[in-house]
Amino acid sequence: MRALRLPAWKTEPELVEVDEPTPGPGQVVVKIGGAGACHSDLHLMHEFEAGVVPWDPPFTLGHENAGWVHALGAGVTGLEVGQPVAVYGPWGCGTCARCRVGADNYCENPAAAPVPGGGGGLGLDGGMAEYELVPAARHVVPLPDGLDPVHAAPLTDAGLTPYHAIRRSWPKLPPGSTAVVIGVGGLGHVGVQILKATTAARIIAVDTREEALRLAAEFGADQTLRSGERTVEEIRSATGGRGADVVLDFVGADATLKIAAAVARTLGDLTIVGLGGGSLSVGFFSVPYEVSIQTTYWGSRPELIEVLDLGARGLIRPKTTTFELDDAMSAYRRMQDGTLEGRAVIVP
Amino acid sequence: MRALRLPAWKTEPELVEVDEPTPGPGQVVVKIGGAGACHSDLHLMHEFEAGVVPWDPPFTLGHENAGWVHALGAGVTGLEVGQPVAVYGPWGCGTCARCRVGADNYCENPAAAPVPGGGGGLGLDGGMAEYELVPAARHVVPLPDGLDPVHAAPLTDAGLTPYHAIRRSWPKLPPGSTAVVIGVGGLGHVGVQILKATTAARIIAVDTREEALRLAAEFGADQTLRSGERTVEEIRSATGGRGADVVLDFVGADATLKIAAAVARTLGDLTIVGLGGGSLSVGFFSVPYEVSIQTTYWGSRPELIEVLDLGARGLIRPKTTTFELDDAMSAYRRMQDGTLEGRAVIVP
Amino acid sequence: MRALRLPAWKTEPELVEVDEPTPGPGQVVVKIGGAGACHSDLHLMHEFEAGVVPWDPPFTLGHENAGWVHALGAGVTGLEVGQPVAVYGPWGCGTCARCRVGADNYCENPAAAPVPGGGGGLGLDGGMAEYELVPAARHVVPLPDGLDPVHAAPLTDAGLTPYHAIRRSWPKLPPGSTAVVIGVGGLGHVGVQILKATTAARIIAVDTREEALRLAAEFGADQTLRSGERTVEEIRSATGGRGADVVLDFVGADATLKIAAAVARTLGDLTIVGLGGGSLSVGFFSVPYEVSIQTTYWGSRPELIEVLDLGARGLIRPKTTTFELDDAMSAYRRMQDGTLEGRAVIVP
Amino acid sequence: MRALRLPAWKTEPELVEVDEPTPGPGQVVVKIGGAGACHSDLHLMHEFEAGVVPWDPPFTLGHENAGWVHALGAGVTGLEVGQPVAVYGPWGCGTCARCRVGADNYCENPAAAPVPGGGGGLGLDGGMAEYELVPAARHVVPLPDGLDPVHAAPLTDAGLTPYHAIRRSWPKLPPGSTAVVIGVGGLGHVGVQILKATTAARIIAVDTREEALRLAAEFGADQTLRSGERTVEEIRSATGGRGADVVLDFVGADATLKIAAAVARTLGDLTIVGLGGGSLSVGFFSVPYEVSIQTTYWGSRPELIEVLDLGARGLIRPKTTTFELDDAMSAYRRMQDGTLEGRAVIVP
Repeated sequence: MRALRLPAWKTEPELVEVDEPTPGPGQVVVKIGGAGACHSDLHLMHEFEAGVVPWDPPFTLGHENAGWVHALGAGVTGLEVGQPVAVYGPWGCGTCARCRVGADNYCENPAAAPVPGGGGGLGLDGGMAEYELVPAARHVVPLPDGLDPVHAAPLTDAGLTPYHAIRRSWPKLPPGSTAVVIGVGGLGHVGVQILKATTAARIIAVDTREEALRLAAEFGADQTLRSGERTVEEIRSATGGRGADVVLDFVGADATLKIAAAVARTLGDLTIVGLGGGSLSVGFFSVPYEVSIQTTYWGSRPELIEVLDLGARGLIRPKTTTFELDDAMSAYRRMQDGTLEGRAVIVP
Repeated sequence: MRALRLPAWKTEPELVEVDEPTPGPGQVVVKIGGAGACHSDLHLMHEFEAGVVPWDPPFTLGHENAGWVHALGAGVTGLEVGQPVAVYGPWGCGTCARCRVGADNYCENPAAAPVPGGGGGLGLDGGMAEYELVPAARHVVPLPDGLDPVHAAPLTDAGLTPYHAIRRSWPKLPPGSTAVVIGVGGLGHVGVQILKATTAARIIAVDTREEALRLAAEFGADQTLRSGERTVEEIRSATGGRGADVVLDFVGADATLKIAAAVARTLGDLTIVGLGGGSLSVGFFSVPYEVSIQTTYWGSRPELIEVLDLGARGLIRPKTTTFELDDAMSAYRRMQDGTLEGRAVIVP
Repeated sequence: MRALRLPAWKTEPELVEVDEPTPGPGQVVVKIGGAGACHSDLHLMHEFEAGVVPWDPPFTLGHENAGWVHALGAGVTGLEVGQPVAVYGPWGCGTCARCRVGADNYCENPAAAPVPGGGGGLGLDGGMAEYELVPAARHVVPLPDGLDPVHAAPLTDAGLTPYHAIRRSWPKLPPGSTAVVIGVGGLGHVGVQILKATTAARIIAVDTREEALRLAAEFGADQTLRSGERTVEEIRSATGGRGADVVLDFVGADATLKIAAAVARTLGDLTIVGLGGGSLSVGFFSVPYEVSIQTTYWGSRPELIEVLDLGARGLIRPKTTTFELDDAMSAYRRMQDGTLEGRAVIVP
Repeated sequence: MRALRLPAWKTEPELVEVDEPTPGPGQVVVKIGGAGACHSDLHLMHEFEAGVVPWDPPFTLGHENAGWVHALGAGVTGLEVGQPVAVYGPWGCGTCARCRVGADNYCENPAAAPVPGGGGGLGLDGGMAEYELVPAARHVVPLPDGLDPVHAAPLTDAGLTPYHAIRRSWPKLPPGSTAVVIGVGGLGHVGVQILKATTAARIIAVDTREEALRLAAEFGADQTLRSGERTVEEIRSATGGRGADVVLDFVGADATLKIAAAVARTLGDLTIVGLGGGSLSVGFFSVPYEVSIQTTYWGSRPELIEVLDLGARGLIRPKTTTFELDDAMSAYRRMQDGTLEGRAVIVP
């Protein structure tokens, strides 16, 4: 079969012929229906080098995958060949306290995982191929009625990551509360939809780009703010001076974290989702009392099932553009030069 | 001033002239802008008798009230004359563990409350008058922008009661879950709106009346079911056999409780809101494992503030018909003969 | 190997020779170090008949098991031969929403489980034998340091069941709260220890037997009450009239449920753990407002891991008496005639 | 009456004669039975100056107070003259969302409070006098049986502050979890007791002083570590490499925050209680995933009631030394030169 593989660090991926995988005991092979192209793949191609992560190329790209069950290994129950499924992306050890409840994203025994801290498309062969070998049946999640693999694929990361970040803050988002979304890009525009679908919080979207703010308004933001010198003042004013109960920073740069800390309400949440490389100095008087500050990484398997339900019911609809496998590299090129509309999904 | 008073048990209310109230220390007089007429007032007029509750007539009716601050007693801070406000209805002792966090509805020292287990319109003078004396400033809640007293009044009970019942079940209502609303009347039709505004749960509404089901669909129910022999089977089928995560019984009769128990999912909630006089036999094998069964009564003051926010933003819109104080009794008559559309609000 | 098997409903178990099991893909064989004898086994022997549960004899008894990993099936990772382990008892389908987070006790797809609603010793071969075949590696939980299989075995049911019932009520058990334990038998005496170890709640133990109350006091009960006509009054008085925040009924008879409902505090929990066959009539005025009433059944795998930690640290110490496999039936006889001290553990 | 007053910033307090207070409407005068001397008083005397806080001297010191109700203002209900009470210290506006549920410590409308962000002993007259005027009855909390004002006084801050910090983390402290207490001083040694009384978590105490570690062990720490180069490694090792579920930093210096971040477990809590002036740089890779980092300040009124219950039952016992009002300054001198054993309580 054909697969888009990264041959080495700091090289371009290549579309090559490889053997079709066969499943061992407890494993599943999925025929790929859609594989999302993620901005982080560009980092893999251009910036990573030996030692940054505990694994190395070559491997097939693609960590946002959905398709149909193709073959089941010995001992696998509860799945049927031909069934449409999504692939849960973070592959942990399966036996630590986190993995036992489906939070492989926070596996505490990465040395016992298929690759430490990675998964398909991240050190192991991913979904930009005709078939993907999934090393444990628990990572294969049936699609609900009404959701096809092309639309399911981006939900496994671009949907799941903001969903996890928002879900943990639900108790702080009752009616009368305010959520601020900083950065309405690939993840942030889904974040606005998730907030709208699952809470009655007021949503304020902040971005530097007018187009992103238009998208935020279309997806349910109550207020949109062009990021600038008056952003903090505007948000404080919009919240009666109290500040925002939850701030989700999908950028994560020094400048956005500074805004986030300045607009958070006492007892609120400030969650760093974006990998912008920024940092925030936290001390007794630099952030309002008892604002919880944390990063989040991807999400859990039960949360993925909930995200897929939102997708199947049309409550979240990530913008997507599809590409054939032959044409995958043009997806990445358009992503890089900023001409890609929404999420690119490769359809082998 | 004029007031609609219940002179004695099992009598008709009378519109009479009484003295305007003046506030003592810590008290507030509210000029009434709207007073909701509740179905429970009919019980007060026609069914109650000495000994049923620990208080007796005469008193002015009306326990769903909103208006404007008219006069402040000594020591009251944080309110201004003329400010639009709602009146939180359950008036507790103010110092027990429940009252300290605003849950006067579950006051544990009713002997120290203004009247035990009552409030304005329930043993004390209520809002069907030009002015109402509120015995403690904490019961007076400022209205948010965009909500007038006429529309706020029914939210203080017909909004707050279903809101409290639903809010306690939020953790069981993530995407993929199902909520069943039994009885889409005065409270139930607001319940559907609250579920829609605050969760992404699937909503199934059950009623015996086609018109109620049309209303439920208009307000956001995903599925409506005419109550009947196949109701249990239909709900089980609609939930993949699992049952409903949360069942809200706004009727509370033997027949509806039986349906509720039969359609609840293991680990779900079965909440009895309606005063239909029914009961359910609970044992190890009569209800699915770990379904929590409970009644709820009214709601807390922080929850009222949240409900008012939903109202101000148009996320819940109880159907209302307004009546002048002279005409209040015709509101009750129409309520009784079933020709009243939505909630009646008396505007003095 | 030898195994204590139930040959048919309403017969006595027999110690017979059977083949040693071998593990298929994903399965594990455990060499048994301790198998608890449970009161419910007596029901299996004497009262059950065809149709009561969806499985039938013959099978080996014993659903409270611990020992050492003996053999691993293909594809099993994270376990080593010789490692001391406990066996999580409820064996679900492994793929439903409940099983995915380790709550096989509430599996929603029992038709896809090894046996519907059962497990080892409950329809399938259990631990009263030299070896037990565990049909999925996830059920095998490593023992923490300081806990041997003999002491671990009863924790898997007599520890886990009360632990689950109590853990769900933690939010209602802060300092100043009261927990009532009705029935200080095999599960209840562990319940008292769990309450003591994990909360600062006042503990009131209720039983008909002086000896049970002495045990409760020894294990940390703040107050012990001989069950009788004045029990309700005594508990109301001990709680300043408010009632108990959490009532755990380890008996579950009509009489104990009546006490439980009468002593529960508004907003409290009333949890039915005991299989005493009783039922409680629940309506708007028969139980205080918003008392949550529910049954619970066994517990989840993450909870078992927590229970084992309590056991390893000596914070819970179920009373046990050990018996050889040859002598297992005398354990059941002593259980039946009331001369057994604590939990019987069979050591093959 | 006599009162220990701070006449101006950067001066020594003076014991002077002042008028006895009389209560206005809604107010209460408390006859002081015990007033705790807090380390922060030394900051008030020696370091503060105009502009640091929104209030200025002169005022009577003492923000940890308990005694007996002496006089009630008009409209106060639920209290009786002579009743033993504690004074809740943070005095907010009384009407914002936080004050409404008893969290005056996080009042969102400080401009409407008696003094902005302060209270008795912090801008207003405190408890180092024969009587204290409490400006709102809600701040007066009855003492439970078995707790006298001398022992209650330090619980209102040195008890309440660590209690609040720990209580918010209870969901992360089940059996099997680990809590690290950094700094076993005035608040930390109570923190160890609170962890012991309310959870089954393993407690690791870290301090630079052997004596503090002995105290920690006496009060229930499972492990004590002399702070040093190997502290991080020792804690990682003691937790099987996972790290601590909850880290409470009662020092709050750069060095302790660095340890705290290095030993926290993914998904854990890192709570900064100590005013050591340090700060922590938080970014995507500087702290484990989803560790929640926050400061906390004092606690809420419902939490104070819970703390008093722990005190009354002997589950927490802050070390105290009593001083007469004449001798109050020697308490501060001994606090400053390090010869004070436990908390100083002034008994007028």
